[in-house]
Amino acid sequence: MSEKNRTTAVASGASIAVLAGGVGASRFLRGLVRMHQPADVTAIVNVGDDFTLHGLSISPDLDTVTYTLAEQINPETGWGRAGESWRVLTELGRLGGQDWFQLGDLDLALHLYRTQRRSEGASLSQVTSEIAASFGLELTLLPVSDDPIRTRITPAEPADAAEIDFQDYFVAQQHGISIRSVRFAGIETARPAPGVVESLEHSAVVVVAPSNPFVSIGPVVDVPGVRDILAQRRRSVVAVSPIVGGASVKGPAGAMMRELGHEPSVVGVARLYAEFAGTLVMDNADRDLAPAVLDAGMSPVVTDTIMSIPEQAVALARTTLHAMSGRARK
Amino acid sequence: MSEKNRTTAVASGASIAVLAGGVGASRFLRGLVRMHQPADVTAIVNVGDDFTLHGLSISPDLDTVTYTLAEQINPETGWGRAGESWRVLTELGRLGGQDWFQLGDLDLALHLYRTQRRSEGASLSQVTSEIAASFGLELTLLPVSDDPIRTRITPAEPADAAEIDFQDYFVAQQHGISIRSVRFAGIETARPAPGVVESLEHSAVVVVAPSNPFVSIGPVVDVPGVRDILAQRRRSVVAVSPIVGGASVKGPAGAMMRELGHEPSVVGVARLYAEFAGTLVMDNADRDLAPAVLDAGMSPVVTDTIMSIPEQAVALARTTLHAMSGRARK
Repeated sequence: MSEKNRTTAVASGASIAVLAGGVGASRFLRGLVRMHQPADVTAIVNVGDDFTLHGLSISPDLDTVTYTLAEQINPETGWGRAGESWRVLTELGRLGGQDWFQLGDLDLALHLYRTQRRSEGASLSQVTSEIAASFGLELTLLPVSDDPIRTRITPAEPADAAEIDFQDYFVAQQHGISIRSVRFAGIETARPAPGVVESLEHSAVVVVAPSNPFVSIGPVVDVPGVRDILAQRRRSVVAVSPIVGGASVKGPAGAMMRELGHEPSVVGVARLYAEFAGTLVMDNADRDLAPAVLDAGMSPVVTDTIMSIPEQAVALARTTLHAMSGRARK
Repeated sequence: MSEKNRTTAVASGASIAVLAGGVGASRFLRGLVRMHQPADVTAIVNVGDDFTLHGLSISPDLDTVTYTLAEQINPETGWGRAGESWRVLTELGRLGGQDWFQLGDLDLALHLYRTQRRSEGASLSQVTSEIAASFGLELTLLPVSDDPIRTRITPAEPADAAEIDFQDYFVAQQHGISIRSVRFAGIETARPAPGVVESLEHSAVVVVAPSNPFVSIGPVVDVPGVRDILAQRRRSVVAVSPIVGGASVKGPAGAMMRELGHEPSVVGVARLYAEFAGTLVMDNADRDLAPAVLDAGMSPVVTDTIMSIPEQAVALARTTLHAMSGRARK
């Protein structure tokens, strides 16, 4: 890629923080680091999906970002490793073990590494940095917090349904049930991981990646302090809508918005984000809703937001940064 | 195998308890269950080698017994699974993780299963029973205790050497260092697992398998209560010497005896076991030492004890039970 292509409205060398979930954020980041110096990009990643299974510490969003940026992602699923094998899980199933969460052999190695290092006293951010280095990543990868934050879902039915773990909802039940509420257990006392506050305060631009507003971006902005920092600089915070044409590009975001009483559209996204982000990048398919986004308090930027191939992600990243022209912090 | 071959001096239908370590005990047990009804055999297995790595609960001796009796053992090493693959460990090494303890893909599945079940509150003996059933084992497999017992080794040098974990000594250092002492952390408060006391009290015969007297049999007989039960019935307790010709058949037993101040011979074994076992099965190579074994307080039975092939193990088991003719409890 030529230097010319790296030039954007946000100056080369400007630092960029990206609030990230899993698949959508990873694709956006892959585009971003192709048109902006990776060393100037910090991804601040959701840990609300993290959980423990078979004794292993699993961080799905951090891993999806890692695998995607290392070009090791399974292109068919958007998660997990390319060229993955399933010898352990197959044997585990034969033993009668829990095999509902797909853990391939290569993927397992990463969980073994993280779990061992955590047991030795390393923080999640420390281990994340080690893993990023192993995979040759040039951007900075941070969990939003080193403290445990666990997303819990209360199903809509029955009326007295007990809260369940996020992965039970998301994977075991394939997010096929309606929900009543979402809670981030532990977030009240969670502290931003080292580097998070600095990145959010000093980056030229903060991007909210196209991730689920409730269960990906929610556990990031609800870490005490984060929302306030963003609100105070909302003019240089830009979000990319994960909702296109009234439905989520991937996953349950659209259904969740409806079930939790929000309009399942880019306008609903704008109402959720307006407090802490000034600009919303939205899809051409929703161009008629741009005035309503403006009414909701965000400056709309209309473009193609679908990232089927990396080149589309590069274009989306370029448009997103271009929208911050003149708004970026020096 | 014909019914005739199953007939022994110890009546068919008589229950047999076997105190077991890893490789040697597994080979003996494989012979035993070919000449005596497996349903009448209870293996009471050392857990002092158990440890946690990568967050996984690993029980090497229980697994070696399981794999051997299921005919799933790697015949070249005597531990681990036949047809094993190493995809996870190879990737873990690439990530810079700890790959000194050889955990194959199939083997890992078992550790994931055990760890998950333990995290759900299942006891080690409960999980062991589930695993034995998965592998189609017909004998009863019991950890000597559900409470944690951890073998610790103090190296002989330097004079102020700190205690190390057993697996650090045994695997990481390939038992290539001299030792000063052995301790079983936690054993003072460990209780025999459900079924252990009943088996030791009511079996017609108790066999001490040819395992390391210090680090395999030691953590079994030192569980409070076990040694006393055996001592009170020592006439019907028979041990098979793991020492042949002044050296251990496998592993560091011979070197350990010397380093810990014992005679590294079958006579040294007799002195260690005489308190709780009346009979010692010893190898033909040591026949000249039979009088000394008798002097040490054990009745010697001289036979071939090397178990290179299963048929030799069957013969050794038959001789061992035959030696108990007239001594077995009714």
